[in-house]
Amino acid sequence: MTTESDARDELIDLAADFYDQFADGEIPEMTLPTRTKSNIEYDTESGVWTYGDRTSTRSANSVRGARKLLKAAYTIEFLAEQLDEDRSSTLRELYYLSESWDNDEAQFSSQDESNDLVEDLEIVTGVTREDFHMRPEESGATLMGPLLIREQTRRGEREIHCQEDVGAGGYQIPNNPDMIEFLDDDIDFALAVETGGMRDRLVENGFDEEYNCLVIHLKGQPARATRRITKRVHDELDVPIAVFADGDPWSYRIYGSVAYGSIKSAHLSKYLATPEAQFVGIQPEDIVEYDLPSDPLSDSDVNALESELEDPRFQTDYWEEQIELQLDIGKKSEQQSLASRGLDFVTDTYLPERLDAMGVL
Amino acid sequence: MTTESDARDELIDLAADFYDQFADGEIPEMTLPTRTKSNIEYDTESGVWTYGDRTSTRSANSVRGARKLLKAAYTIEFLAEQLDEDRSSTLRELYYLSESWDNDEAQFSSQDESNDLVEDLEIVTGVTREDFHMRPEESGATLMGPLLIREQTRRGEREIHCQEDVGAGGYQIPNNPDMIEFLDDDIDFALAVETGGMRDRLVENGFDEEYNCLVIHLKGQPARATRRITKRVHDELDVPIAVFADGDPWSYRIYGSVAYGSIKSAHLSKYLATPEAQFVGIQPEDIVEYDLPSDPLSDSDVNALESELEDPRFQTDYWEEQIELQLDIGKKSEQQSLASRGLDFVTDTYLPERLDAMGVL
Repeated sequence: MTTESDARDELIDLAADFYDQFADGEIPEMTLPTRTKSNIEYDTESGVWTYGDRTSTRSANSVRGARKLLKAAYTIEFLAEQLDEDRSSTLRELYYLSESWDNDEAQFSSQDESNDLVEDLEIVTGVTREDFHMRPEESGATLMGPLLIREQTRRGEREIHCQEDVGAGGYQIPNNPDMIEFLDDDIDFALAVETGGMRDRLVENGFDEEYNCLVIHLKGQPARATRRITKRVHDELDVPIAVFADGDPWSYRIYGSVAYGSIKSAHLSKYLATPEAQFVGIQPEDIVEYDLPSDPLSDSDVNALESELEDPRFQTDYWEEQIELQLDIGKKSEQQSLASRGLDFVTDTYLPERLDAMGVL
Repeated sequence: MTTESDARDELIDLAADFYDQFADGEIPEMTLPTRTKSNIEYDTESGVWTYGDRTSTRSANSVRGARKLLKAAYTIEFLAEQLDEDRSSTLRELYYLSESWDNDEAQFSSQDESNDLVEDLEIVTGVTREDFHMRPEESGATLMGPLLIREQTRRGEREIHCQEDVGAGGYQIPNNPDMIEFLDDDIDFALAVETGGMRDRLVENGFDEEYNCLVIHLKGQPARATRRITKRVHDELDVPIAVFADGDPWSYRIYGSVAYGSIKSAHLSKYLATPEAQFVGIQPEDIVEYDLPSDPLSDSDVNALESELEDPRFQTDYWEEQIELQLDIGKKSEQQSLASRGLDFVTDTYLPERLDAMGVL
């Protein structure tokens, strides 16, 4: 976690670079890694995918380019002020706020433009959006399990035990999970669960209590805050992370975003990705082995599976085998389809068997 | 709130009706209100829209009809057992679970079929799905404000203050909000907020503290649990409810589902709808008055507005005036567009002015 004053310094340094370039009679510019699939590389040291060496340059040598740097300078001023005042805002608020800026040329013409600029600033400064105090629109995960946390809020500190001090809905993590400190825990592993229905099943069946498991609700494609908290649980509490999702290509992408990071945010992989995270299922193999109720693969499912076979992040023996098998059987199953064996099958049989086979239990 | 044994009795009574019809040599049948737009009526006493007098009959006089009643009988058995054991399940689990039933004819062929059947059972028995212990897939609202609640969980009771005992993310209500009891509060009014970005803005600016306001996060189109908790806050705590959403036809529907209920769940209006809820904005009038950044209405926006003009639930002077104005100016604005006047404009100016004009403050 970067401190507020560090984040502010990084931003001011960038603006100072523009100033120095001007002062030296140079045309100001900003250099960024090229953000395409062909420029992501596996970093063997950290085990995550990050940008490669290719770069692109934003230069003020055109009206368009100059306008981009002007907008960057205004945004830097706003963010520095926000950090000074210990306030925060959303990406959408930034977009609208630009309408109040005195220079029309600095105003954003679309939300995409302001979103992209904030990403550029993250990449160039090496500071995350959260540390600029930019909040996401979507709320992050809820946690349920034997974990005592302390959250820093603007209303003071809160100590919350994620089983004893929360209702059945669990503990709602804040937008910036780095405001949380882990105080104490009795966690053997964490299970990151795709759907609300399955998350509630695990909590109802007391799976978190019986197995000392921290249940993290991914809520579909996980928000940045959810991926961040998952990584912190892994790194700081030194426990295995297992991802439990539906058995279809879209859910493998959910696993992928937890484990490998995304192309769009490869600059954040070290901060968000948990390469040690393992996939519990539903595996295509499970559909066969447990004879689960299934739906036929649609054309877009098949396309997505084929595109995953091409994706460097899925080029492991395990994934190639599972994806080939799925294309072969032409079926997908949801995690809740385990209910066809009764409501306790998932907690009494499926998860213990799978987690044991994976070496988690 | 219906007790578990009441809910169970209502279900068993329905199965007993089938039995008695058989015993009397009659063809078993089940009678339901017709669930179409033309059969919803305004109930002046309760102020909500409910089904009118027209009914449809499900009879066992065809194979198709007989199969429907067979499925109903199996589902009743499952639900009665679930209530006996004080367990719960999701709609999706019920669908998959039917694969374990001994009679193939009783198994559901699609999730829509099992969903519809559970709705039928709600209507016929007058018991809500939540009281059958059927959990929704989506999670409900978070609350932030001066409210002390007691939640009944399977792990015992939890007393939680929705400002002092929660993090910045607030209190996550359980899937069945009737498991909550309101113990104490200092609430002057509740504000139900559409977007996460605006919810976070209000919390960051301390709006809940300054105005003794309970902030309810709707998360877009609100889940049943969210509408239920909103109604209970209104009825039990006797405070006004104000809905704060974007200024477009889809957000007026969000307001409508809080205030009037939906056609699909008109049988639940008395349980879910809060007819006294008022719309704060963004009003089309606000777009003009506050000169908010806006987007042009799309064709589908225009169609949706025109369909709202035809909708009996929107046929009030207020809504006709606002919708006509919006069609006239051809613009829509998001709630976060208030940030174009600065991050504090919404809490320092807009909401106090609007809530005062509405008589809430």
